[in-house]
Amino acid sequence: MRLSRYFLPVLKETPSEAQIVSHRYMLRAGMIKQASAGIYSWLPLGYKVLKRIEQIVHDEQVRAGHIPMLMPTLQSADLWRESGRYDDYGQEMLRIKDRHDRDMLYGPTNEELITDIFRSHVSSYKDLPLTLYHIQWKFRDEIRPRFGVMRGREFLMKDGYNFDLTKEDALHAYNRHLVSYLRSYERMGLQAIPMRADGGPIGGDYTHEFLVLAETGESEVFYDSEITDLKFGDRAIDYDSVEQCQAVLEEFTSRYARTDETHDEALFNLIPEARRRNARGIEVGQIFYFGTKYSDAMNATVQGPDGKATPVHMGSHGIGVSRLLGAIIEASHDDRGIIWPEGVTPFHCGIVNLKTGDAEADAACEAIYAALTALGLEPLYDDTDERAGGKFATMDLIGLPWRITVGPRGLKNGIVELTSRRTGESVELPPEQAIERIAQIYGKAV
Amino acid sequence: MRLSRYFLPVLKETPSEAQIVSHRYMLRAGMIKQASAGIYSWLPLGYKVLKRIEQIVHDEQVRAGHIPMLMPTLQSADLWRESGRYDDYGQEMLRIKDRHDRDMLYGPTNEELITDIFRSHVSSYKDLPLTLYHIQWKFRDEIRPRFGVMRGREFLMKDGYNFDLTKEDALHAYNRHLVSYLRSYERMGLQAIPMRADGGPIGGDYTHEFLVLAETGESEVFYDSEITDLKFGDRAIDYDSVEQCQAVLEEFTSRYARTDETHDEALFNLIPEARRRNARGIEVGQIFYFGTKYSDAMNATVQGPDGKATPVHMGSHGIGVSRLLGAIIEASHDDRGIIWPEGVTPFHCGIVNLKTGDAEADAACEAIYAALTALGLEPLYDDTDERAGGKFATMDLIGLPWRITVGPRGLKNGIVELTSRRTGESVELPPEQAIERIAQIYGKAV
Repeated sequence: MRLSRYFLPVLKETPSEAQIVSHRYMLRAGMIKQASAGIYSWLPLGYKVLKRIEQIVHDEQVRAGHIPMLMPTLQSADLWRESGRYDDYGQEMLRIKDRHDRDMLYGPTNEELITDIFRSHVSSYKDLPLTLYHIQWKFRDEIRPRFGVMRGREFLMKDGYNFDLTKEDALHAYNRHLVSYLRSYERMGLQAIPMRADGGPIGGDYTHEFLVLAETGESEVFYDSEITDLKFGDRAIDYDSVEQCQAVLEEFTSRYARTDETHDEALFNLIPEARRRNARGIEVGQIFYFGTKYSDAMNATVQGPDGKATPVHMGSHGIGVSRLLGAIIEASHDDRGIIWPEGVTPFHCGIVNLKTGDAEADAACEAIYAALTALGLEPLYDDTDERAGGKFATMDLIGLPWRITVGPRGLKNGIVELTSRRTGESVELPPEQAIERIAQIYGKAV
Repeated sequence: MRLSRYFLPVLKETPSEAQIVSHRYMLRAGMIKQASAGIYSWLPLGYKVLKRIEQIVHDEQVRAGHIPMLMPTLQSADLWRESGRYDDYGQEMLRIKDRHDRDMLYGPTNEELITDIFRSHVSSYKDLPLTLYHIQWKFRDEIRPRFGVMRGREFLMKDGYNFDLTKEDALHAYNRHLVSYLRSYERMGLQAIPMRADGGPIGGDYTHEFLVLAETGESEVFYDSEITDLKFGDRAIDYDSVEQCQAVLEEFTSRYARTDETHDEALFNLIPEARRRNARGIEVGQIFYFGTKYSDAMNATVQGPDGKATPVHMGSHGIGVSRLLGAIIEASHDDRGIIWPEGVTPFHCGIVNLKTGDAEADAACEAIYAALTALGLEPLYDDTDERAGGKFATMDLIGLPWRITVGPRGLKNGIVELTSRRTGESVELPPEQAIERIAQIYGKAV
């Protein structure tokens, strides 16, 4: 993308309403604009990151054998009356009346709707196991929305639901989700720690929350410092293998890691003191096994191998897709702006032309732009006539992990500059080598 | 995808509520399930087609130089009061009160919100031309929703908005949209004819509607039969070229083609009688130029080259993404089910194993499945133990354009059967050649 043809309304001043760094930078980098309280428009740059995160979540769910679909945003109140949650949910549920005065609501979650789909179409244990998921906008009418997309009212969430014949099968589904979530967060450049948590309005006492450590986190967390050394990494996993998935669960949840809701001081104190950590965390996902809570209430049964109707064992599993943008920025920024991990960056590389209008500089930039594009990468080329200082400030603010700087002086010696946003380190090298380095970083064959 | 691990709840019986063929087949093929009146869940198969259509629309908009973003589903009523449309819109607008009793609405369209984004961030003619678009769920509270996704209440729409300094520039944006729409529909296997139409609640008297001819269409249309011979095809186009885009507009709109709203019997009768056609059509898109209607009302101005503030010229341009599934099926089906055009098919090819459990047949199917997958294609492999007749009926119903049938008898002679869903023609050939043919059809190098 050429910046002269893009819509990137960066702000020089810090908007006064933003209390935390991710909100400030998302506004300043032209990623979002508030439409009304807790409701945001995703400007082009923010939208690109949102789509990249969404794609990672899709990839990893499909890899785990889970099936994508899409439920609507608005739901009839009837199903929620059937489960008993219509009255329980309180004022965070946005209740709506349509023109025929029917009670509707903007879905805050989808256990009822998916259970209704399941019971309408599945009647035999032979169709199990089954895990369906979708990524859809949700609404929770927060009384005091704040922190930008971190605690908005309209938010994008992945929610998945497993249906299994037995508790054992459902716990395997739970483990599959844990593994796929670890992979998803790592691909986004995040360390999200599974912590023992509380069921809340979803229900179930078998649940883990995934938390990203950050000073601005809303949750107080307690953990054994050894847990931050764990990485899922590149290891191969067979999602059908009960043993392999169970082993990952044990590896990642056997050390003490709890939110304040489930914190147990006595257990915590059994950890050697040097390893005890008390910090703050941002919740970016949660997995639940809740047994037959909804299938009992809504009569979602299958015929088992013995011919008897048996309620299915279920769980639900969520990733806060839009909130992840905030979490990533909270975890990865400096005083000049955002530092995107390569896995979610909106553009793979910035190209700064130090002297737009200079024939040689223009041609070199165009050649680099064309070469990167031909590799299947998306560079952002600042071809405007702003001065160099302004161009650097914008690139630093929007946080592209790599920048190629092109100017007449360097070109005289056949070189351009390649700069890492994270370390600030620059190397001078011929354009072809800069392109090669970028290709390597993103795993593209030159 | 292996059918044994998929969720494809096909129905044997035709649901009584479905009045038109696309609605019937979408229900029977397990593509959608009604969640409440005019609101649908997209089951896995339907979701896949929806995503393919969405991707074509994205591709062609980006190709035309238009910039993707995303606005929220819920909007504050304030902006609609500013434009004057809050009261005008009537009961089709779903009005909502949040917990603080603020007036909100579920966006039926986005002229106000995008104009607000524009005026907040753009102040100079140097930032023009600018076209922003998004693909987002909308809601119109139809009094009598019907025809499945063709006239639902919650629906997915692409809406784009151009901002230009002059009427001439805005008409070029209009033409760009016309070209990009022609390309989009053709990639979906559809012929959608641009017809002179009426502005309706969006406003503007410069507007074309795109209509797909189908007996079940809601609009009566009148046209010169020569228009159905026009194809955009593979021709190269420079979207920056005013002349090229204008030439396409002239080519595709100079012949008589109007909906009943703008039909002019006298003009129509000037066409030779043999070429006069009166038919029905399904509206799948509309483009508008409406000048400064919203920029005047909402004070969206830029500083022109002369230093004076001038209201921007705008247009809006919509494609009904979810409704297109219905339109494509109306245009492409037979009495056994859907016939997907290759451009939007949910799976590229079906593989039917005539004798699941037979070692040779299983191995041959697995090899074909692996080969097609390695080519970047998505086959649907029916590995269930249903009898052959049932497998064929399902494949015909869900409408995959190509089917490879594998059985022990053919394998003895080294052959499988490749069948075209559209023509019903089958050829027998070795598995490698069947794979090659499928690869060719989808433009993949073997």
